[in-house]
Amino acid sequence: MKKINNPTQNTWSEILKRPTQSFADIEETVKGIFKEILQKGDVAVQKYTSLFDGSSSENILVSKAEIEEATELVSKELKQAIEVAKNNIYKFHEAQKTEKIEIETTEGVFCWQEKRPIQKVGLYIPGGSAPLFSTVLMLAVPASIAGCTEIVLCSPPNKQGKINPAILYVANLCGVTKIFKVGGIQAIGAMTFGTETIPQVYKIFGPGNQFVTVAKQVATQYGVGIDMPAGPSELLVYADETSVPSFVASDLLSQAEHGTDSQVILVTTNNEVLKAVEKEIYLQLEKLPRAAIAAQAIEKSKLILVENEQLALDLINEYGPEHFIICSKNEGFFIDGIQNAGSVFIGNFTPESAGDYASGTNHTLPTNGSAKTYSGVNLDSFMKSMTFQKITEKGIQNIGKSIEIMAEAEGLQAHKNAVTLRLKKIK
Amino acid sequence: MKKINNPTQNTWSEILKRPTQSFADIEETVKGIFKEILQKGDVAVQKYTSLFDGSSSENILVSKAEIEEATELVSKELKQAIEVAKNNIYKFHEAQKTEKIEIETTEGVFCWQEKRPIQKVGLYIPGGSAPLFSTVLMLAVPASIAGCTEIVLCSPPNKQGKINPAILYVANLCGVTKIFKVGGIQAIGAMTFGTETIPQVYKIFGPGNQFVTVAKQVATQYGVGIDMPAGPSELLVYADETSVPSFVASDLLSQAEHGTDSQVILVTTNNEVLKAVEKEIYLQLEKLPRAAIAAQAIEKSKLILVENEQLALDLINEYGPEHFIICSKNEGFFIDGIQNAGSVFIGNFTPESAGDYASGTNHTLPTNGSAKTYSGVNLDSFMKSMTFQKITEKGIQNIGKSIEIMAEAEGLQAHKNAVTLRLKKIK
Repeated sequence: MKKINNPTQNTWSEILKRPTQSFADIEETVKGIFKEILQKGDVAVQKYTSLFDGSSSENILVSKAEIEEATELVSKELKQAIEVAKNNIYKFHEAQKTEKIEIETTEGVFCWQEKRPIQKVGLYIPGGSAPLFSTVLMLAVPASIAGCTEIVLCSPPNKQGKINPAILYVANLCGVTKIFKVGGIQAIGAMTFGTETIPQVYKIFGPGNQFVTVAKQVATQYGVGIDMPAGPSELLVYADETSVPSFVASDLLSQAEHGTDSQVILVTTNNEVLKAVEKEIYLQLEKLPRAAIAAQAIEKSKLILVENEQLALDLINEYGPEHFIICSKNEGFFIDGIQNAGSVFIGNFTPESAGDYASGTNHTLPTNGSAKTYSGVNLDSFMKSMTFQKITEKGIQNIGKSIEIMAEAEGLQAHKNAVTLRLKKIK
Repeated sequence: MKKINNPTQNTWSEILKRPTQSFADIEETVKGIFKEILQKGDVAVQKYTSLFDGSSSENILVSKAEIEEATELVSKELKQAIEVAKNNIYKFHEAQKTEKIEIETTEGVFCWQEKRPIQKVGLYIPGGSAPLFSTVLMLAVPASIAGCTEIVLCSPPNKQGKINPAILYVANLCGVTKIFKVGGIQAIGAMTFGTETIPQVYKIFGPGNQFVTVAKQVATQYGVGIDMPAGPSELLVYADETSVPSFVASDLLSQAEHGTDSQVILVTTNNEVLKAVEKEIYLQLEKLPRAAIAAQAIEKSKLILVENEQLALDLINEYGPEHFIICSKNEGFFIDGIQNAGSVFIGNFTPESAGDYASGTNHTLPTNGSAKTYSGVNLDSFMKSMTFQKITEKGIQNIGKSIEIMAEAEGLQAHKNAVTLRLKKIK
């Protein structure tokens, strides 16, 4: 672990630098596969599923029988846990519904804003060692509340042509309309263009490896929206002497076990806290099944000692962490002052894993500093806001002259004319 | 104009197809200039400003004296018109402020969502024949309401090194913090990386030609957010026998004068309306100063006759117009049923130019079908939502077991451990 003692402000950007990712070579691969999917549809999708996932099943659409089978395979205990998480996620995202905003800006000029669902959305769920059924909850629950009519889910099959039962169970439970056993670049390409079997969608959500990340980026060039740019997961903890070092260490480690490229940072004003957390990390690390992965992430992690809370806050805002834990006697100072973070966890009994699974907040969050610009996934991610206006004769009389003058000044005579004709009619 | 009579549904996608744009060659140019700006900063910016805009002024930052001069040059009449527009835009966007959303999802589990401003934003305003000071209003007013601390504006200078006075006047009026006489690819590159003079921003807004459009797309690869993908402007009018053909024609023409690639569509269930609007278009067209441009757009425009209102609505939702005007005795049917549109204009006295300038709604809207996915610019475009959670001992006891079970099922032991440690401490 790298310990950094009172760094001067001009070194912050270097200290907080994330590893840069180069995608140039992957982009060519993605574009090639996209082109083939555009031309050959399902045939191309099956070719790459066979090539990359080793599954040669022709039925890429998950059947009712498969869902029933999966439902049998998920334990009662896990089903109950999923129910608790689902209820909390549902409550928090349901509360995000917004009313129509309506205002008469000038007498006779009525403007309103309404949110309507994105009709067709695609959810991508990675395969691999960790079956991320929790991500299905985080995406399908708000999509369903938003009222999206088509909710497509793609996830890669294993060599036996199967998707993890918990993923199928949760997808079915949360209103996914179609599930496809397709992963990687070919899944993103299929949802971008549509094939004979897989519907085209308007926006694609969900995490993935570097191939999926680049494929989502390329999809935007074809007019498809994406949830956000993706990067390795991150956690920054601010802890003072009121924190519990073993808790802080366990949070840093739960981030570290995600992958060797996970970003793990501790910021503190107290050197004793720093030393205690470091000691706890090594104590807990050796007992973890994913210790090999976590150790590599921990090796690159940073423990930063700063002089005071204001400097800590400034440094954290410059970094813009995906997850930000506050264990401080002055938590209000950090809550009020944090400008750039995906999700914030407050107090000793609020581990990051609560938000990852069951508190109700979403775990699909901006990484790589994009918390400076992007929201995490929320109800609005599945909707777009539209504006409406209705103007009476009185209304156009009130603002018509101003429109004419401005249109004229911009050299747009036909814009002016559209008003002039109406004003004449009223007189 | 192309008249289309009761098209069958399987021909819609062909009829509604927008011209595809190929940006592959421009992308190389953009990447080259970006690389140079990253390495050489202001020197590269000045090189391209001199090359593309013919301005060799070294002072790219607009001075107080220049703003005072511009303020003198704008007529009193135009200032008053701008004031009317600004007030309406302010009122409508101010009304979009949202409260903190807070909910106790389970006893002891408190989750809330808050929106905070994107701290640094960049506004791009094109130069050229039409000085789009109205776009400055549409971007700077909500940026200012949102509370963005740095609002940078870039606009290309003319050969004399000047920006149109109305642009400078409005920028200063609406809270822009710095104005730079820099345009095109070099402006987008400078705001993406920052130079000695021009600050790096987190999100870039505003229209532009194809070079600016591609530059914004490339900027996203460096982690900068953008308002939305851009394409030629569009208007679709639905009109029945209650419409006024001369009004409808004037609206279609005001769209057509934007550029030869503007998309102009009329949908109606009434062939008499179709013929009357067509006749009016040619009557009005010849009197326009920008008739040459408008005529080319009108040439490619479409007048579509459909059998009934439901088919009209379905077709309009498949197109997803940027601007949608409804002149119908059944306007409620279209208002309730429209799923995909940027901004909607209702009734005979609501021309598109009202929304372009002064009704209060935003005119920066999704084109090219992206209304299916994207919102137009609104207050939230300048903010990001963050989530917070605070869990009590009771709270973690309530949801801890579920988190443990789910983390275990996903094979993430350290995630489980972060909860287990806390539960043990409470006992």
